[in-house]
Amino acid sequence: MMLDTLETPCLLLDAARMDANCELMRSRLKGQGVQLRPHVKTAKNVEVARCALDAADGPITVSTLREAEYFFDHGFRDILYAVGMVPSKVPRAANLVRRGARLATIVDSVAAALGLVEASRRENVSIPVLIEIDSDGHRAGVAPGDPRLLDVAGALGGHLQGVMTHAGDSYNCDSTDAIRAVAERERAAVVKCAEDIRAAGGECAVVSVGSTPTATFAPSFKGVTEVRTGVYVFHDLVMAGLGVCGVDDIAISVLGSVIGHQRDKNWVITDAGWMALSRDRGTARQKVDHGYGLVCDVQGVPIEDLVVADANQEHGIIARRGGGAIDFGRFPIGARVRILPNHACATAAQHGEYHVLRHGRLAETWERFSGW
Amino acid sequence: MMLDTLETPCLLLDAARMDANCELMRSRLKGQGVQLRPHVKTAKNVEVARCALDAADGPITVSTLREAEYFFDHGFRDILYAVGMVPSKVPRAANLVRRGARLATIVDSVAAALGLVEASRRENVSIPVLIEIDSDGHRAGVAPGDPRLLDVAGALGGHLQGVMTHAGDSYNCDSTDAIRAVAERERAAVVKCAEDIRAAGGECAVVSVGSTPTATFAPSFKGVTEVRTGVYVFHDLVMAGLGVCGVDDIAISVLGSVIGHQRDKNWVITDAGWMALSRDRGTARQKVDHGYGLVCDVQGVPIEDLVVADANQEHGIIARRGGGAIDFGRFPIGARVRILPNHACATAAQHGEYHVLRHGRLAETWERFSGW
Repeated sequence: MMLDTLETPCLLLDAARMDANCELMRSRLKGQGVQLRPHVKTAKNVEVARCALDAADGPITVSTLREAEYFFDHGFRDILYAVGMVPSKVPRAANLVRRGARLATIVDSVAAALGLVEASRRENVSIPVLIEIDSDGHRAGVAPGDPRLLDVAGALGGHLQGVMTHAGDSYNCDSTDAIRAVAERERAAVVKCAEDIRAAGGECAVVSVGSTPTATFAPSFKGVTEVRTGVYVFHDLVMAGLGVCGVDDIAISVLGSVIGHQRDKNWVITDAGWMALSRDRGTARQKVDHGYGLVCDVQGVPIEDLVVADANQEHGIIARRGGGAIDFGRFPIGARVRILPNHACATAAQHGEYHVLRHGRLAETWERFSGW
Repeated sequence: MMLDTLETPCLLLDAARMDANCELMRSRLKGQGVQLRPHVKTAKNVEVARCALDAADGPITVSTLREAEYFFDHGFRDILYAVGMVPSKVPRAANLVRRGARLATIVDSVAAALGLVEASRRENVSIPVLIEIDSDGHRAGVAPGDPRLLDVAGALGGHLQGVMTHAGDSYNCDSTDAIRAVAERERAAVVKCAEDIRAAGGECAVVSVGSTPTATFAPSFKGVTEVRTGVYVFHDLVMAGLGVCGVDDIAISVLGSVIGHQRDKNWVITDAGWMALSRDRGTARQKVDHGYGLVCDVQGVPIEDLVVADANQEHGIIARRGGGAIDFGRFPIGARVRILPNHACATAAQHGEYHVLRHGRLAETWERFSGW
């Protein structure tokens, strides 16, 4: 494997798993006749985005203007900045538009719409806008049926391009049937809003939905034009807990070294703490709680019921889920383990590069950026 | 304030508060006759380390070899790498020693000790070692009274320089009396181990303790030679919850912009999500739970009972603690808020720079590094 040449902790990326995850989502959405607009916030890396799209310049979704700038500089032109826009960010967005980006953004209120229209007028650019719809009450957006929708549409005038929503509530489902129901609610919410806007004479070319669980299980995309989904490129333990993927589809892991043992407590101490894993405890609310991550051997095969039970900044404490004896003979000082993450977006964000494995060997190192 | 010129989200550092926090710890430990060896993992920045020491080259503690290398390159020579050493990391440490660093490290087992001795022999350098003592059962170390202590000392031979412990359990205290008790246990544990080593004829020049709560409240440092403490340079809500500092001593905050409102739910949405705040929920187990952070106005004054109740990657949801009406007039679209962090180490780690405020104005930008 040559993994013993790497400094630990570090982030590994299994390219074959990523390729398969990307191919599966692409072919599913292609079969459904909807455009895939992958959310590149998960990876923040151009090679992964190219894999997701099977193209070097397809449409993407971003969560920061730095992402928009980085991916534009790497050849991507059609970019949706899917976080509520405020006037102070318009000059930076306008720079991208002047450089040739087709950058769209989102708002969910008349105040934000008027601020955007005024700020883009000052910048002498036209920025297309989607109205954010709140399909499940979990974050931002205008609720379907709320008369303010048409007020926002009116305030946007010629900037209005469509509607979008994100079914974040899909992360809290306890069955694939529940995810299907959330997906149908997501679709129905945004399609209804598009119809309301059109009925009032407004423009609504784009009808955009997105979350990895709903993209995977939605029974229909009728009326939807595009799907935004991000974490599927890597998958993670939360997705596995939802039944969206298997544990053996998870493409990223943190490589750590055993640095100590507490035999009386049945703990193995590693150098992969929360700085390497993140503080994300997303599986804490699922049926199977993986602590700060599921422990695998250096080949990436899970070791039954071993999890990172606790984490300090640069220490991870490996224990058996629910307690119990550890076979310390498997974990001598310096031995390497791989840890599957709860949440790929959060864990990847702790690292500046991906060590890419192909055919069981280290093939490349890909950079990952951060910041805003 | 000129804070409206900054892109959000970003990290602010109030220099006057940091100066006061550093001066207070320095004068306390000087008065107690023990050496301060600040833990620079919190800030990962040379200007902050210089402020902590009031000197450009004092002794420091690090949690990664990258920290050791960075601070060595910035003039620091006396460095303790306070995470269990493994042979694979010795070549990189040996490079620093050959360049002139007085780099010490730690182990807590015969296996790790033998591995270190052998690896440093191969590198032809001598690396001083402290034996890690487990004073409170929370992580790594040899327990006081465990006969393996002398085995580890024997395995280290001439590398042995002393003992160290970290009273991580002090973070779980519910009163300053409890912290004092933990501090005394921390001191007693490590002093006893030093005495045991000396009684067996071993070398034990260094007796090192450290955590911000115990450094602040320890009734005695008798027998201790140095104190390692890190988070006090910034402080945070967890430290305030422990009574170690006041909320108005917290020197870092995240500047965010209001990007939306959910009036029916009494939520204000900002662009400071967990990517800017970290996923740390350290106050969840304290008497007052601040969610993902305590919300302040742009001058840094807390707004009563407003917390970041939930966070997505680039969205923070501000709500009143326990629910209740929000005065939305204070939070128009684009308004700026400052958010005090649960855990300074975790929040700072999400950022690549500090925007330094002096006399209420932006004075400088300091870089912050990451990675291993």
